[in-house]
Formats: sequence, structure tokens, C-alpha cells
Amino acid sequence: MSFQRVAIVGLGLLGGSLGLAIGRALPDCATTGFDADAGVRARAAELGLVGRVCTTVAETVADADLVILCVPVGAMGAAARALAGSLPPGSIVSDVGSSKRRVAEVLREALPGVTVIPAHPVAGTERSGPDAGFPDLFHNRWCILTPDADAAPEATARLAEFWTALGARVEVMDAAHHDLVLAVTSHIPHLIAFTIVGTASDLEQVTQGEVIKYSAGGFRDFTRIAASDPTMWRDVFLSNRDAVLEVLGRFTEDLTAMQRAVRSGDGDALYALFERTRAIRRQVIEQGQDDARPDFGRKDH
Amino acid sequence: MSFQRVAIVGLGLLGGSLGLAIGRALPDCATTGFDADAGVRARAAELGLVGRVCTTVAETVADADLVILCVPVGAMGAAARALAGSLPPGSIVSDVGSSKRRVAEVLREALPGVTVIPAHPVAGTERSGPDAGFPDLFHNRWCILTPDADAAPEATARLAEFWTALGARVEVMDAAHHDLVLAVTSHIPHLIAFTIVGTASDLEQVTQGEVIKYSAGGFRDFTRIAASDPTMWRDVFLSNRDAVLEVLGRFTEDLTAMQRAVRSGDGDALYALFERTRAIRRQVIEQGQDDARPDFGRKDH
Repeated sequence: MSFQRVAIVGLGLLGGSLGLAIGRALPDCATTGFDADAGVRARAAELGLVGRVCTTVAETVADADLVILCVPVGAMGAAARALAGSLPPGSIVSDVGSSKRRVAEVLREALPGVTVIPAHPVAGTERSGPDAGFPDLFHNRWCILTPDADAAPEATARLAEFWTALGARVEVMDAAHHDLVLAVTSHIPHLIAFTIVGTASDLEQVTQGEVIKYSAGGFRDFTRIAASDPTMWRDVFLSNRDAVLEVLGRFTEDLTAMQRAVRSGDGDALYALFERTRAIRRQVIEQGQDDARPDFGRKDH
Repeated sequence: MSFQRVAIVGLGLLGGSLGLAIGRALPDCATTGFDADAGVRARAAELGLVGRVCTTVAETVADADLVILCVPVGAMGAAARALAGSLPPGSIVSDVGSSKRRVAEVLREALPGVTVIPAHPVAGTERSGPDAGFPDLFHNRWCILTPDADAAPEATARLAEFWTALGARVEVMDAAHHDLVLAVTSHIPHLIAFTIVGTASDLEQVTQGEVIKYSAGGFRDFTRIAASDPTMWRDVFLSNRDAVLEVLGRFTEDLTAMQRAVRSGDGDALYALFERTRAIRRQVIEQGQDDARPDFGRKDH
């Protein structure tokens, strides 16, 4: 195996799952872990998320051949600066952040001369914290690597091999393209879900009790997405601003067209869109990206 | 039991589930069913969705003490006119439509002198058609009755008893308030989901293949909602126009505020919203309106 000692900085849903996944898939690989929160460190040790929980980031990375930063995107710079002086020569630094252009800049700046291969496993749940981790999180999920044009291909290949061993499917992509694709498939859906849940709970003529009571009509699916970690998502939107604003502009145009169709009673325009979106769902199911059971098997029928 | 012979007009997800639910919970109640589509009638007979599938709507309702219209909201008027001449005296007409003000008007106009108690079971899945029906659909779900101010309280009470027997929890509400509450909890979430799925598949710099491939980051949840029946939803938006436009206006305002926060880098505004929406999710779970397993148990961990 290409890495013998992996250091994980940040032991929440992603870092914890990563430690557990390595423990299961690569039992010969030693793992160390650090979290800035002492309570999280204690819990991570109890749960055995990594082989050894360290009390300083320097100790965590001192011996590592791969360091993976699993902190919110806005904390990447500080985390990288904290470990810069302790990195052993030849080690590779990567991350799991949901936006890649800004993270690459920040890591390059904090770690001059270090091999940095940014990565984004497209996986997660609405839970966060060390108790949310589980070893299957990356299984059959895509992990997108966004090396710079001048990154050593061997380093990218080693990291790809590592993620493949954890059950992920690896793609290599330009960071800017990653940020646009993820703005569409993840960031804008989250921003919209956060917003509609806020709108619903604000509407004075409708009580919050009613919003919750009748949420099975569609709203509850948005509340799940809108339960995701606030710090992580704040940082995603701030760090992927350009792509988020571009896609949001498109969405707003399309929503305005739908609003006009509702106002003018243009049933054909509505029907044409609804037919088209149904076909996309079929492809999501066919490509194994979702559970085909109605309501995700909520009722187990 | 208050009803002995129930006629179901429209044998899709709702009508089929209703027939199956009656068959299980009220075995002494005879059911007849009709669908305008001969293929659906044949399939409904094969599946045993109702006791007897009829070839005309007149035959279906001839003997019924309760008639429930399970057709798209836009087809309610035509369905009501078709059965008006065949209704036995004293029978009650109800429906399962997702908007109530317009449906009440249409039914009142088509059925002068008939006792009409509009109803909306807040239940469904993304599937449609006779094969989508299952007897548990209404179990523990809310059913909202919206009788006119001058409706006989006994008729409302009988219908409430009927839905309670099928496992639903019954609320009585003013039709206009229903339409606003459902615009918030169901109609606008659906309109937004349909729109974002359309936006994503249109974005030229991102291929449709990539949108599907990376949909596990949030987008896939929207595709499920956007797979719902196109005819049903077209009619919902057209028939609940005023409430839909009002809530959509609020949502657009809130989204514009979020857009401004992203553009200006106002992380505190983003964080404050995300914290608040997380609390709403907890209430949805606590009130039993959703499955608490992460990702709805998609990975069964």
C-alpha cells in the first residue's frame, strides 16, 4: 500500500469516517488524529476513530506520509499553518473540502514546497461530529482529486489508489470545473433548502407548528438537507462564491419563468418541465446514486 | 361503520391506496372503482385495488354512500359533472386533491344540492399509477377536511371517522388556510425542486452526466421530489395560484438576502440561518414526520 502512516486533522463526520474506513480497509496503515476541540478528541479516542489521538497537530503529523485535513474549508489555512513546521519531508497533504479552488490557494500559500493534492469525497449525511462517523461513508461514492497542473502525477496516483482502497471511485478534475459542478449538484441545493426552511418558519399567517405537522408533503426532505453542519456550509458558500452566484443566477431566472407560468396559467410550460425532471430522476437511480425505494424506504413497503 | 359502499373515481397512487386501505381496515365496506384510462382499469382489477372495477363512472357511483374523487385537481370538475346525474340521494362526495379552495368551488358548481366535504390526505410518494398504491399510505399521516361554513357537521364527522379508520389523523381547516399551509409545506418545495433539477440539466458548462454522477451531494433529494406526477402537479400550481405566488414571493426575497450575504461575504448571516433551520429539522423528527436515520437509512448503517 502506498501510505503507511496517515494523519487526520479534524475528527468530525468526515475525519472520523476516514479513520474508521482506513482501520477496516487498510489495517496495516497506522492512523493518528487531532481535533482542536478537546471534547471531540476525548470522544474520538473512546470511539477508536483513529489508532492514536494526539493533543497537538505537530505530534499528529510528525511521522505521517499522508496528512488529510478534515476541517471546515474556512479553517484549512490555519490548520495548514499549524502543521507546516512539523511535516516530515516527502509527505503529501490533502483535504476533504467541498470547494477546491480557494482551498488549493490557501494550502499552497501555507505549505510552500509541500506536495498538495486537494480532494473532495462527494459523501456525507446531515449529521456532524465524531459520533456521526461510519466506515462505509465513502463506499461507492465519488472522490474528486483536483491536482494543480504542475503536481507530480505519482502523488495523484498514490492518493487515487488510497481512496480506491477505501471503496471510493476516483475522478481527476480541474479545480474550477469541480467548483462549478458541485455548485450545481450540492451547494445550490443546500442554499435553497436552508432558505425555504427559513421562509416557511417565518411566514406569520402559518404557524411553525403547522409547517412541521404537514411536512410530509415535501418540506421534510428540505429540512434534512437544511440540518447539515452550519459552519461547514457557511465556509463552502464563502469559499465558492463565484460559482455559487453564477448557478444561483441561473436558478433565479428559471424560477422567475416558472412564476410567470403559474401567474399566466401556462400549464404546458409547467408540464414540459415536470416531464423532463422526471427523466433525470430515472437516470440518478439507474446510475446507482440513490435508493429507488419510494420515499427512500421510509415506510419499508 | 359510517359508510357501507365507497366509490373511488381515479385509480392511481391515491385512489389505489385508498381502495387497498379500505379493503384492509374496513373489510365490510364494499368498494367500486373507475378510471378514465382502460389500461388503468384493467391493471386495477388485476391488482384488486377495489372490490369491483366499473366501466362507467355512473355505474361506479350508482349505489355509493361515499364518493371520493382521486383525479388530478384540474379534472375534478369534469369528473363531478360526469357522475352528477347518477348519485344516489344522501351520498357524500369528497376528494383527495392537494389544493382545496378551487376544488370546493368546482365541486359545488358541478354538484348543486349534494353534500360535498373536500379532503386532502397529506401523503404520497414520487411514484404514480395503479402499481404505486399500497394500503399503508395514509397510516399516521394527516388528512385535512375543509368543509364549507354551511356544511352539515354530521357529514364532516362521518368523513373524519372514515379517515381515522384508515389510520390517518384528521384536522378540520378553512380551505384558504389549507391552501396557504400546503403552499409552504408542499407546493413551493415541489416547484423549487422541479426548477433546480431543470436548471442543473441545462447548465452548458456542466454536462448532464456530471450532474447525475455527483448527485449524492444533495441534488439527488431534489430529483426524487421532481419525479412526482407531472399532471397532478401542473394542476396543483394552476389551482392554488394565489397562495403559491405569495409564498414564492417570500422565498425569492429570502433567497435574494442569502445571495447578498454570499456576495458580500457575510458569514454571520449565513450561519444564523443555518443554525435556525437545523432546529426545525429536530422538530420534524420529534413529531414523527420523518425518519431519523441519516439519509433515510439509505446505507442502513
